[in-house]
Amino acid sequence: MTRLVLDADTGIDDALALSYLLASPQADLLGVVGTYGNVTAQSAVRNSRDVLRLFGRDDIPVFAGCEAPSWADLFEVDEGCARFHGSNGLGNVNPATYMPQGGDLDHAGDHTGDGDHAAGAARSAEAARSSAAFRGRLIKSVGGEHVDVVATDVAPTNASAATTAAFATTAASAAASAAGVAATTYAAMADAAAASREGEGVRFIIDTVRRLGRDVTVVATGPLTDIDAAIRQAPDIAANLKLVIMGGSLTQEGNCYDLVCETNIFQDPEAANRVFRSGVDVTMVGLDVTHQCLMTREDAESWRATGTRRGAFLADMVRFYINANESSDPIFLAGSPLHDPLAVAVALDPTLVDCLPINMMTETATGNGHGVRGRTIGDPTRLRQTNKTTHVAFGVDARRFTTMFRERLEALCR
Amino acid sequence: MTRLVLDADTGIDDALALSYLLASPQADLLGVVGTYGNVTAQSAVRNSRDVLRLFGRDDIPVFAGCEAPSWADLFEVDEGCARFHGSNGLGNVNPATYMPQGGDLDHAGDHTGDGDHAAGAARSAEAARSSAAFRGRLIKSVGGEHVDVVATDVAPTNASAATTAAFATTAASAAASAAGVAATTYAAMADAAAASREGEGVRFIIDTVRRLGRDVTVVATGPLTDIDAAIRQAPDIAANLKLVIMGGSLTQEGNCYDLVCETNIFQDPEAANRVFRSGVDVTMVGLDVTHQCLMTREDAESWRATGTRRGAFLADMVRFYINANESSDPIFLAGSPLHDPLAVAVALDPTLVDCLPINMMTETATGNGHGVRGRTIGDPTRLRQTNKTTHVAFGVDARRFTTMFRERLEALCR
Repeated sequence: MTRLVLDADTGIDDALALSYLLASPQADLLGVVGTYGNVTAQSAVRNSRDVLRLFGRDDIPVFAGCEAPSWADLFEVDEGCARFHGSNGLGNVNPATYMPQGGDLDHAGDHTGDGDHAAGAARSAEAARSSAAFRGRLIKSVGGEHVDVVATDVAPTNASAATTAAFATTAASAAASAAGVAATTYAAMADAAAASREGEGVRFIIDTVRRLGRDVTVVATGPLTDIDAAIRQAPDIAANLKLVIMGGSLTQEGNCYDLVCETNIFQDPEAANRVFRSGVDVTMVGLDVTHQCLMTREDAESWRATGTRRGAFLADMVRFYINANESSDPIFLAGSPLHDPLAVAVALDPTLVDCLPINMMTETATGNGHGVRGRTIGDPTRLRQTNKTTHVAFGVDARRFTTMFRERLEALCR
Repeated sequence: MTRLVLDADTGIDDALALSYLLASPQADLLGVVGTYGNVTAQSAVRNSRDVLRLFGRDDIPVFAGCEAPSWADLFEVDEGCARFHGSNGLGNVNPATYMPQGGDLDHAGDHTGDGDHAAGAARSAEAARSSAAFRGRLIKSVGGEHVDVVATDVAPTNASAATTAAFATTAASAAASAAGVAATTYAAMADAAAASREGEGVRFIIDTVRRLGRDVTVVATGPLTDIDAAIRQAPDIAANLKLVIMGGSLTQEGNCYDLVCETNIFQDPEAANRVFRSGVDVTMVGLDVTHQCLMTREDAESWRATGTRRGAFLADMVRFYINANESSDPIFLAGSPLHDPLAVAVALDPTLVDCLPINMMTETATGNGHGVRGRTIGDPTRLRQTNKTTHVAFGVDARRFTTMFRERLEALCR
């Protein structure tokens, strides 16, 4: 048995990853943390709870993770994520309608499909008010892009993206210059804010790793904000933290608009960079391999063909994802990438992939002398060190994985 | 014995690579092609001839390769290259002064150290005049950056770099818009210009590969313009062309100012992209491995300690390179990267490196949806193909190589 904690920004492929864990006999899922990314953290928690309930596993606890990147006060889902995951994160499919009679979803009414995208999530009213009082304005992330919000009201507003261009040096210095405070002051303030941001999800990660050490694998399928917060709050866990991430891209183009960055890492490059440089043992399951593992309409129909509500839920949700991928890039006419499911599958069975041992970093600024904010790349300062902390999946047994994926989910639906 | 053709833009590390081939008993160097890059093509030819003569091997022929990238009419060395290689390409060291008495260098008077950087090289007077008549202006590459030159005179002028910003889409379309002609017209014109540009160096590559097939290895240590021209002029050679390149970077940051691109590839991204996509068997020796193989001041002093003119030449030349590297980046305080020498060493002994099989490409435009002009990355359209045409060196036995390198050059000096 493999004991796991899943930290997910529960959109469609996170929901599939969660389902794959429930369908895998060797998986012992201890808990799920819901974080921002594909959706808001609140929606990630809700979506994870709904999937667990739909598959009869509401015994597994779900915790709230960070609601915004380490460099921002607020977070709003960007249009790109909404296009791939639907505005509720589950392809605009409402799990409540697939529940057996008498099924009771806490948030069934929330699945109207227009909540997440429009409304940004305040990190916490108290922390945001404190930041606003200090600086006179808030920093909002819209899917990783920096937007300033004048803090006349703690509730997020639709500020323009005019400050994005100023984001050429570093998040901290750009933020500092926008707010009119010195970078050092900003850094200290950010540290203080980070401490208040760590909620029950980060605490759960810390406690579980402290208790089980390398006998638990933490799988992060969203931004690395929670993992970074856990390591910063409890540096003692770094030596024992066994981490598998879905994120980054080393040998293939990225899936952000710039074709350089991968979306999970782009949400919080500073957090990703600190995790890569922390000494933690990281297995990086990036686009290098996830773009080789494709889900087809035939897979979805095999779940629907079980004739169950669960099969219909998966098939309906996945249809949205496949449509979105097909219209985004001709390479996905062959199928839609199984990003997050592959990461959890690798956590259960590392033999699915061949890895490159390499010390990785994330660039945190764009421009000459900096690289590209959000790019995952080898760390030149640790190139010649013989100890390599990151293992980047490069080759994958795609046929074995995609077959297992289809079959296990089919069995789960029955 | 390994038969080789070396295509080099002979700066300092190219000169070291050439010396390493002369020092390696298993190398049978059939000829050298001098191309633009670290220096002008004329200087590359001159420097290669001088190094061959200094080591008593002027029986090896040197041919002139392309004088400008496939997308430009003119080429000028940029300041960055001059800083690393000196304005004559050999660290401002004049080989004539190291020749035995009676030594006779064709171009001894040219080594004053201020020729290359100031004067761009016209591709050929006739072709340039023809382009100028057609478009009314010329396109100049300054180390890979696009500069427009009004063609009132065929001789290159110091035009401003104002058009560089317009270079955000593709070289062809930016050039076309600058010149006021349609992109399709420009493409046809570029093809015609390319045909006239292929000189004796390209012809030598074609003839040698046709004659020897996979019994000759072509090593390119500069831009891939000559290789691309050879494949375009003689597509029949692609199936048998065994190519080792020094260029690109897949898992490490680049060495252009942007930290994304590697300088050889950045000079002619279109040519590199065509070569990667041509089906040719390419071994890519990029910064992934060359930054692991460092030359130290102790190496240089071991050559000087032979007490020979040759040893003094190498040591003096290398001192310039080490100084330049040390002041460019703290990571090179440990030593200076042996870019081109590693590429020729791999051509002689492929067991020095572990390679990743991957279908590569070069991005040719910068911006959303394009990536970064000059970036070497996996080709998404060929990710799932089982046949991989490029082998990217990822691991290297740095100790074995650097030891052989020092010892062979020391023996060559004696």
